Amino acid sequence: MSEHDAGFKAALEEAKKGASEGGVPIGACLVDKHGKILGRGHNMRVQNSSATLHAEISALETAGRLPASAYEGATMYTTLSPCDMCTGACILYKVSRVVMGENNTFVGGDAYLKQRGVEVVNLKNAECEKLMRDFIEQHPEDWYEDIGEPGKKH
Amino acid sequence: MSEHDAGFKAALEEAKKGASEGGVPIGACLVDKHGKILGRGHNMRVQNSSATLHAEISALETAGRLPASAYEGATMYTTLSPCDMCTGACILYKVSRVVMGENNTFVGGDAYLKQRGVEVVNLKNAECEKLMRDFIEQHPEDWYEDIGEPGKKH
Repeated sequence: MSEHDAGFKAALEEAKKGASEGGVPIGACLVDKHGKILGRGHNMRVQNSSATLHAEISALETAGRLPASAYEGATMYTTLSPCDMCTGACILYKVSRVVMGENNTFVGGDAYLKQRGVEVVNLKNAECEKLMRDFIEQHPEDWYEDIGEPGKKH
Repeated sequence: MSEHDAGFKAALEEAKKGASEGGVPIGACLVDKHGKILGRGHNMRVQNSSATLHAEISALETAGRLPASAYEGATMYTTLSPCDMCTGACILYKVSRVVMGENNTFVGGDAYLKQRGVEVVNLKNAECEKLMRDFIEQHPEDWYEDIGEPGKKH
C-alpha cells in the first residue's frame, strides 16, 4: 500500500475536487481485491447540505448495490482517518483494509477497525494533511459540524 | 420510552412505507431533546439502489446539516437494531439514546452503543419483528446484501 496506488491517487483527487468546490476536503475510493475501482467520492456536507455523505459513504454509495462478495478483500482508501460512521460502514461491508492519508488532523476509528479485524494503513501523507489544516483554519465551523463537535476553535 | 412515542410511531410508519414500496422494511426517526422530529426516513436499498441509505442514515440525511448542539439529548428511534454503519452514525453525532423496535431478527451495535455511552432501549415490538420476518422470508437476497452477509438462507 503506497501513495502510488491508483486508489489513493483517486481519493486524493476527490479531496482536491472537494476543496475546489469549497467543501470539506476529504476524498475516498473503494477498490476491490483485483484492483478495480468500485466507487469514489468526496465529502458533500457543504455542497449538498448533507449530514451523511462523508467521503467513504460517498464512495460506497457510488459503488451502488453490491453483494457481500464484492467487498471481500476490498480496500477503502481515504485521505483522512475515518469517523465513527465511516468506520462502521467499512465494518458493515467487511472491507478488508482501510488505507488513510493521515490521522494527524483527526483520529477516528483506527483502533476500532483493528479490533474488528480490519487492516489499517496510515500513509502519513503531507498533502492530505495540508488540505485539512488549511480547511480547518479557514472554515472551523464547517469542520466541527462535520465531526459532530461543538464549535471549538483549534 | 414507549411504543406511544411520536418518534417511534413515525419510525414504524416509515418501515411500513418501505414495505409498501417493496423495500427493506426498516424505518427511523430522529427526535431532539424537546420532542421535535428533526428527520425521518426508511431504508432505500431497493428503491434507490442505495448501499448507504439505511433507515437511520436516511433520517439523519433528511434532518440535514445541523450543529453538534442539535443532537444533544436527541433520540434515534429505529424499528430494528442498528447495523455497524448506523451505530457509528449515532455515535458520530453523539445521539443520546437509541430506541429500537426489536433485535430478534438482527443484532447490530447494541453493545457498542452502550460501551460508547449511548442509552439503548429495546421496545420488543411484535409488529416491527413481523415486518422483518416477512421480508427476510420473501427477499432473503436483498436482506443479506443489506447487512453485508453472504447469501445464506435462514
